[in-house]
Amino acid sequence: MARPTVALLTDFGTRDHYAGTMKGVVLGICPDAALVDISHDIPPHDLQFAALELAAACPYFPSGSVFVVVVDPGVGSARRGVAAEAGDYRFVAPDNGVLTAVFQRMPPKRVVELTERRYARPTVSRTFEGRDRFAPAAAWLAKGIQLSALGRPLSEYTLLDIPVPTVEDDGVYGAVLRVDRFGNLVTNIDRREFDRVAASGAIEIDVGGHSVALLVETYTDIAEGEVSALFGSTDHLEIAANSSSAGDQLGVTLGVEVRVLRA
Amino acid sequence: MARPTVALLTDFGTRDHYAGTMKGVVLGICPDAALVDISHDIPPHDLQFAALELAAACPYFPSGSVFVVVVDPGVGSARRGVAAEAGDYRFVAPDNGVLTAVFQRMPPKRVVELTERRYARPTVSRTFEGRDRFAPAAAWLAKGIQLSALGRPLSEYTLLDIPVPTVEDDGVYGAVLRVDRFGNLVTNIDRREFDRVAASGAIEIDVGGHSVALLVETYTDIAEGEVSALFGSTDHLEIAANSSSAGDQLGVTLGVEVRVLRA
Amino acid sequence: MARPTVALLTDFGTRDHYAGTMKGVVLGICPDAALVDISHDIPPHDLQFAALELAAACPYFPSGSVFVVVVDPGVGSARRGVAAEAGDYRFVAPDNGVLTAVFQRMPPKRVVELTERRYARPTVSRTFEGRDRFAPAAAWLAKGIQLSALGRPLSEYTLLDIPVPTVEDDGVYGAVLRVDRFGNLVTNIDRREFDRVAASGAIEIDVGGHSVALLVETYTDIAEGEVSALFGSTDHLEIAANSSSAGDQLGVTLGVEVRVLRA
Repeated sequence: MARPTVALLTDFGTRDHYAGTMKGVVLGICPDAALVDISHDIPPHDLQFAALELAAACPYFPSGSVFVVVVDPGVGSARRGVAAEAGDYRFVAPDNGVLTAVFQRMPPKRVVELTERRYARPTVSRTFEGRDRFAPAAAWLAKGIQLSALGRPLSEYTLLDIPVPTVEDDGVYGAVLRVDRFGNLVTNIDRREFDRVAASGAIEIDVGGHSVALLVETYTDIAEGEVSALFGSTDHLEIAANSSSAGDQLGVTLGVEVRVLRA
Repeated sequence: MARPTVALLTDFGTRDHYAGTMKGVVLGICPDAALVDISHDIPPHDLQFAALELAAACPYFPSGSVFVVVVDPGVGSARRGVAAEAGDYRFVAPDNGVLTAVFQRMPPKRVVELTERRYARPTVSRTFEGRDRFAPAAAWLAKGIQLSALGRPLSEYTLLDIPVPTVEDDGVYGAVLRVDRFGNLVTNIDRREFDRVAASGAIEIDVGGHSVALLVETYTDIAEGEVSALFGSTDHLEIAANSSSAGDQLGVTLGVEVRVLRA
Repeated sequence: MARPTVALLTDFGTRDHYAGTMKGVVLGICPDAALVDISHDIPPHDLQFAALELAAACPYFPSGSVFVVVVDPGVGSARRGVAAEAGDYRFVAPDNGVLTAVFQRMPPKRVVELTERRYARPTVSRTFEGRDRFAPAAAWLAKGIQLSALGRPLSEYTLLDIPVPTVEDDGVYGAVLRVDRFGNLVTNIDRREFDRVAASGAIEIDVGGHSVALLVETYTDIAEGEVSALFGSTDHLEIAANSSSAGDQLGVTLGVEVRVLRA
């Protein structure tokens, strides 16, 4: 078996030891693991943010990669821990919907509850299940155990209500779901949905009441001071400015409505 | 020998190249090392913060792990460099007390001064000993040399004066030693010390003059707007709020007195 | 062949998934790679900052290391992608000058344009070439392909105009090129240039009109409240304060003129 990848996504930040401690636990069980940080700077407790980052990153990882996600406002409560198989990947996370965006793109083949105590640390802290329950489960998967060994199968699990675009007579109505470091506004409208409207002729793009210049190919095609639309790296419609923040320039942020309308 | 882990803890931040450069040095000496960041965002020169993060993380790492700690306000001065063995771990650090909290939990078996020039880089910068002295020493340990090869044994070394709780007739008096990213206040009172007071009947918990709700099991047990006490992931008494910062809510921070008193 | 190191330097930040996604791509092609972050917190689009961090870090990496640099204001435009060989290292980056400081210290033996589509991902996003073009090229180099396999040789490539010191009759005139996390001001004057002036007798050091105390050996030699000059870890003249920010104390920042004058 190739060297297994274990990728981590948390809201633990990088100042405290939490993420590093989880890695120590993984290496204790699976010393060959290649550890990759997707992010530890998810805004605290922001499940939708984490769900979208995970879904954007995971298709680019090697087959067999294990993802451990700890954004967990309900840590220590009765909420379950889960492990899932989807695509060629395995996932370990609290059952709070943080896998929703992955499941939308890759329907899960199998979801289990983390009930097998032998794959957790002997003592499970009620305030740090990432260390005592999720990291060990991910490491055991990386080491080669079957998903089903981790616990009983689940047919129901928590899903987030992540906004999806709606298609109306006059176009498609979506929303900004992510704002990245550069201030680019990433929407939930993908190329297929966009093309359905654009195929029939001229269109207009509106972001929170602001009309936006028509589609360009990449950031450098945007004129100084302009805000334009383009398809970003996950093939979703994105609103961007030239070397500045589109969000700042339009005065809009996360959640704002984006409309692609027939002209 | 299993693949050795080298864990890094510094106050170098993540914007500059310093931490990455240390890793380059480690891999040049020990290409098989699994590198783990505990943190590079220790507040600059904050030895106590670093000491506590290290002690919280290290017991969860694989046996044989090497920790290299560079929080070093005295870089380039006459202060010594040390390597130590404690528990199943080895540590490399400036002799400034940054290993104090580890030593409180795991008395060191052996401490040496880093005097053997052959295990440092040929030229040692007076302003970046992390790169030229500490990283190489850690890498050589990971590669399998004995601690004693690094230099002459030390019987005395620097220790920080990290506040420890005092037991009085009416209860135990401690302090907040760490504030984590979520605003949880981690005290120096551990479960054993707490139980000694709590065993004899009802108690009261006071944080900087604010009475705090009695013990809960985990964060989600805390009512909206309340601040409660619980045992955190290192089994120390912790003051937390529900989905908000306990420190902000009480208007207290690092160092504030925490009292567990018989009612 | 020893386990190859792939080091990453970007301005992607650590909140979004971008850097992690690039690592997933590298591991898919070269599972044995040791991944090292030099920094992902380069100020957005700051090519000179990135160039200097890269040049400061790379000489400390193992021979054969591959560096992938994605600070790329021109992503998706007609600007080329390049790979280069210099010293014992290979580099993959946009052709925007971000390798300039490396080339100043280690003249490139070979530079090629990234034209071979087989070493990119099948679909190359116009907004994330780091994932689809640069990470794969770096991974293939780490896996052992020749630089020349990546594309046609280039005899010209973009270079930044990074300020270099000028030697005048009365001394050497340089500038502050980097300000590190601790507020230390790193200049472009190296020890050789400094010595040429200092060899002939007493000197004066001036930073943006402020006279600075003469050379010390390390930070702790600087008196409380003083600002002094010393040679930093890359052997360049550096202006530092004792446990505080020299930049703040002098009220100067990046780019300010530094003069080393015969007294």
